[in-house]
Amino acid sequence: MKPVKSVEILAVPGIPLVRKDDDLARLIGEGVERSGIVPRGDDVFVLAQKIVSKAEGRMVDLATVEPSAEAIELAGKIQKDPRLVQLILSESVRVVRSRPGVLIVEHRLGFVMANAGVDQSNVASPDEPQRALLLPIDPDGSAARLRERLWSRFGVPVAVIINDSFGRAWRRGTCSVAIGAAGLPSLMDLRGMPDLFGRELQVSITGHADEIAAAASLVMGQGAEGLPVVIVRGLTWRGTDNTASELVRPAAEDMFR
Amino acid sequence: MKPVKSVEILAVPGIPLVRKDDDLARLIGEGVERSGIVPRGDDVFVLAQKIVSKAEGRMVDLATVEPSAEAIELAGKIQKDPRLVQLILSESVRVVRSRPGVLIVEHRLGFVMANAGVDQSNVASPDEPQRALLLPIDPDGSAARLRERLWSRFGVPVAVIINDSFGRAWRRGTCSVAIGAAGLPSLMDLRGMPDLFGRELQVSITGHADEIAAAASLVMGQGAEGLPVVIVRGLTWRGTDNTASELVRPAAEDMFR
Repeated sequence: MKPVKSVEILAVPGIPLVRKDDDLARLIGEGVERSGIVPRGDDVFVLAQKIVSKAEGRMVDLATVEPSAEAIELAGKIQKDPRLVQLILSESVRVVRSRPGVLIVEHRLGFVMANAGVDQSNVASPDEPQRALLLPIDPDGSAARLRERLWSRFGVPVAVIINDSFGRAWRRGTCSVAIGAAGLPSLMDLRGMPDLFGRELQVSITGHADEIAAAASLVMGQGAEGLPVVIVRGLTWRGTDNTASELVRPAAEDMFR
Repeated sequence: MKPVKSVEILAVPGIPLVRKDDDLARLIGEGVERSGIVPRGDDVFVLAQKIVSKAEGRMVDLATVEPSAEAIELAGKIQKDPRLVQLILSESVRVVRSRPGVLIVEHRLGFVMANAGVDQSNVASPDEPQRALLLPIDPDGSAARLRERLWSRFGVPVAVIINDSFGRAWRRGTCSVAIGAAGLPSLMDLRGMPDLFGRELQVSITGHADEIAAAASLVMGQGAEGLPVVIVRGLTWRGTDNTASELVRPAAEDMFR
């Protein structure tokens, strides 16, 4: 007797360091081909946010940032570099919480997250320590464009998720979520499906792309390992495709911001 | 060239419906043996909360619940069954948010969650519609006991996670998290690990068991599928084991309750 259902999470080895204007779809395609992995139609390609941002030129030299009076004042309160705070504020629509060392904002895309996703690690060599990396301008759009390229290259309708590590309310430790997605239901509505006893399921809208993002993160690892492209294979889902923006709870229905 | 790293998520088929006082470790062991899966030392057994709760007799007949005046008043405001609200309040230390249809509490174990995890779906046959299932009394303890039994049965030091679907602040859709764990670092501290360029990682404490819980949820599925036991194979981790209680952010450092 065999397991009835299994999912594989495969790291694509040998993805080079990504730089501005690199053709990311090509780098991924070549990496996959070198690995011997043959993509299938149900494969979900999960890409670390940092490689998408880097290819899209979202690296900013902090020396070019002129902090506003607001950024300087806030930076003093929370003990951060005023130029970094300026970048964070520029990426945000409002500050949700701040205290020394912590700045949680509502990102312009609706994500409630630390530092608007602006990241100083894994973005530059030690010779260039003054850079920071912003989220992609439009991660759902990036995912859709990359999906089209990968679909075209491999001839099968793969899905794409761009993931990033987020802190959470109420729980310690980061957990990866989907900030961009194409080709699958990011938010999956199971309402109306019967439960084991034919009663309608009660809690039945799942953050499907977020669970895939978290699963991929287990293989991507952190730090020196650097495996920013992962394929999640063998998933089944139902419902129509929707983007990662569907995972953002609108402010009007949010009780915690 | 082969993928350098991969993780498999295997559903254990044929786990029977679990009832009070069932020997859950034996049911899981027998299911695994029938499946042909041979457990390895790095396997993480992820168990759906509902089967642990059921085996531990945490099903409550609503007809036996006498709602307090407080429960009756709150139930009127939020339009829920007063007996269910009584159960939720009995499992909680305080109400965090309430509005019609929504009751978010701090569970006695510290989890900030809807309905204190009290679940009416997938818990009874249509002939017995008046029951509700509570979380295990001590999910970390349950995970540790089950781990010991599975380790003994299979001769390898497997890890165990008990998962449950939680709603999140700021994001739509549920995502599974770990409510109990044994044999692995639930909260994994990567501080001090160098990033790709030798700089210390900035965001580097991960909710490791939560990411595993979410990954397993992709295979467990929902509703009629009923695959409550999943093995996550091929993970590597570092650091000392700690329980799922480590994932609960203490109220004193929480900015959102």
